Amino acid sequence: MSNSGDTCAIACMSDVWECYRPELAAVEDQIRQNLGSKVALINTVCAHILNSGGKRIRPLLLILSARLAGYTGREDAVLASLIEYIHTATLLHDDVVDHADLRRGRKTAGGVWGNQVAILVGDYLYSKAICHIVGFRSQDVNECLSEACRKMAEGELMQLSYKDDASISEREYLKIVEYKTGALIAAACRMGAVVADAEPALRDALFRFGQTIGVAFQVADDTLDYAASRETLGKLLGKDLGEGNITLPLLHLRKHCADAERTRLEEVMESGLDGSGELPWVVSLMERYGSIEYAMETARGFVRAAKAHLEPFEDSAHKRALHVVADYMVSRDH
Amino acid sequence: MSNSGDTCAIACMSDVWECYRPELAAVEDQIRQNLGSKVALINTVCAHILNSGGKRIRPLLLILSARLAGYTGREDAVLASLIEYIHTATLLHDDVVDHADLRRGRKTAGGVWGNQVAILVGDYLYSKAICHIVGFRSQDVNECLSEACRKMAEGELMQLSYKDDASISEREYLKIVEYKTGALIAAACRMGAVVADAEPALRDALFRFGQTIGVAFQVADDTLDYAASRETLGKLLGKDLGEGNITLPLLHLRKHCADAERTRLEEVMESGLDGSGELPWVVSLMERYGSIEYAMETARGFVRAAKAHLEPFEDSAHKRALHVVADYMVSRDH
Repeated sequence: MSNSGDTCAIACMSDVWECYRPELAAVEDQIRQNLGSKVALINTVCAHILNSGGKRIRPLLLILSARLAGYTGREDAVLASLIEYIHTATLLHDDVVDHADLRRGRKTAGGVWGNQVAILVGDYLYSKAICHIVGFRSQDVNECLSEACRKMAEGELMQLSYKDDASISEREYLKIVEYKTGALIAAACRMGAVVADAEPALRDALFRFGQTIGVAFQVADDTLDYAASRETLGKLLGKDLGEGNITLPLLHLRKHCADAERTRLEEVMESGLDGSGELPWVVSLMERYGSIEYAMETARGFVRAAKAHLEPFEDSAHKRALHVVADYMVSRDH
Repeated sequence: MSNSGDTCAIACMSDVWECYRPELAAVEDQIRQNLGSKVALINTVCAHILNSGGKRIRPLLLILSARLAGYTGREDAVLASLIEYIHTATLLHDDVVDHADLRRGRKTAGGVWGNQVAILVGDYLYSKAICHIVGFRSQDVNECLSEACRKMAEGELMQLSYKDDASISEREYLKIVEYKTGALIAAACRMGAVVADAEPALRDALFRFGQTIGVAFQVADDTLDYAASRETLGKLLGKDLGEGNITLPLLHLRKHCADAERTRLEEVMESGLDGSGELPWVVSLMERYGSIEYAMETARGFVRAAKAHLEPFEDSAHKRALHVVADYMVSRDH
């Protein structure tokens, strides 16, 4: 397979989707081919969740990382499909944990087949991915992927531990974000470097790039929870506050608001929304104190830091594509 | 560490526990040491479930397999602790899937901390185990353990697929049992052979031994669901029938009962128990047609077949211990 990006002018995200269309089509083929259980229920549920409109950002990043590191083969499509399996497994479990009925506007697997099925198909997809991964016989891949999975579970549990806890610090919040979201994206980018047989420093650079855009994405996503419309992101505004998840704009607001406001704010943080108008009040305070702008600027700062991690690589279409993806991670468009 | 079994006379299960006490104590140390998350909630939940009275059968089998294959080192205790992590992860998810409130007479993790925590700590324990496992850099261990995990999830989903389905065959039932229970015990025994650096034929022999006693155990456990008292097994009689799980004694009964009985029986199989006396009627039919005895004899047949898989090994205290454990798997004592 050629390096599609080499012949493309890449200025925005739609250019990226277009330029790497053959590579992404190969990933879709692998996603279908590698599933194949004899249990019809497994195939049905997996098809439902794997075809539910995910953007394949992690597969794309793995492929771009591999190409940036000089890879021209086809194995990256296999690894990319396995990263998507693991991501999908976490979505299945997250939807059960969050009692979610909808994902990207469609009913969740738990909503259609029950939580039992969602939990077990999540376990199946995860272990199926690990089965394929160990077939690559790469110690680096084994280690970075298993670490990523551990961090994702640990990050989700850290978040649960801090539920309704107004004392959480920005540092603790960022650790949760790094674990629950940065870890798998970091692993995806590193696996691209591994399949390209890149030297250790370049593997580390791509790992850090991925981790940092992952953090940027989650910080932006958490911030848009106070700023986006339901139409834009397909989810309810104020979901995090309603669930007791304390995120960056709220931490900024708590620090900068007046004492009397802080007292009421901490009550809301600890008891959640009861529907009597707290959310508009919180959002108006955030606008007044610049909390949303602060958090979005923090996310953009992570994007700049991520791009800096790519400095060891020479300029190329693939590097431009990774920069474009990095910017996309904090945009409202996904 | 010496081969404790060498100096022991082993006639029954309490002899096994006694003779391998130092090895099992080393496993307990590893179970404690390898956990160590910075998230207090994780340590609390893991301690709860890991100290809830599990018999450590899989760790014991791994150690006995290693010793049978000539191993005298200490690494088997580490691998044994990781097998227990994975088993524990599956228990956490099974309890959520089964809506169980009690396990071995104690509240389940889901009952104490909620299903969210049970799901995520299961994910954590599983991925933590995989992190440690890949550190062993053994392709055989990586493959057999990831395969076992895939089979466990697939077996549980097969069982769900056949819920309330009276048309399930004995062959399909046995495949479910092999996957959901045999696979991890097979992996435990094979991992013992791997750590002992045994030749491929002996690894395969221990794998098949483990798989077969796993099947024997599950068939016996399913049968005792119609024959044991609540006191003996700490669970309700007729649980499987109530949940629509169709197991061997029921399959035997369906085949051998009179036509009129079969009609009513298949109604019960497909609609479950509604509390109006079906269970005593089913149990009395099973006694009349010898279904419980047939299923227990099938389980004992698997035990004999399992022991035959050990024929390539010379007689030793370790082999005697494995025979004793094999018999124990189908007894009412655990």
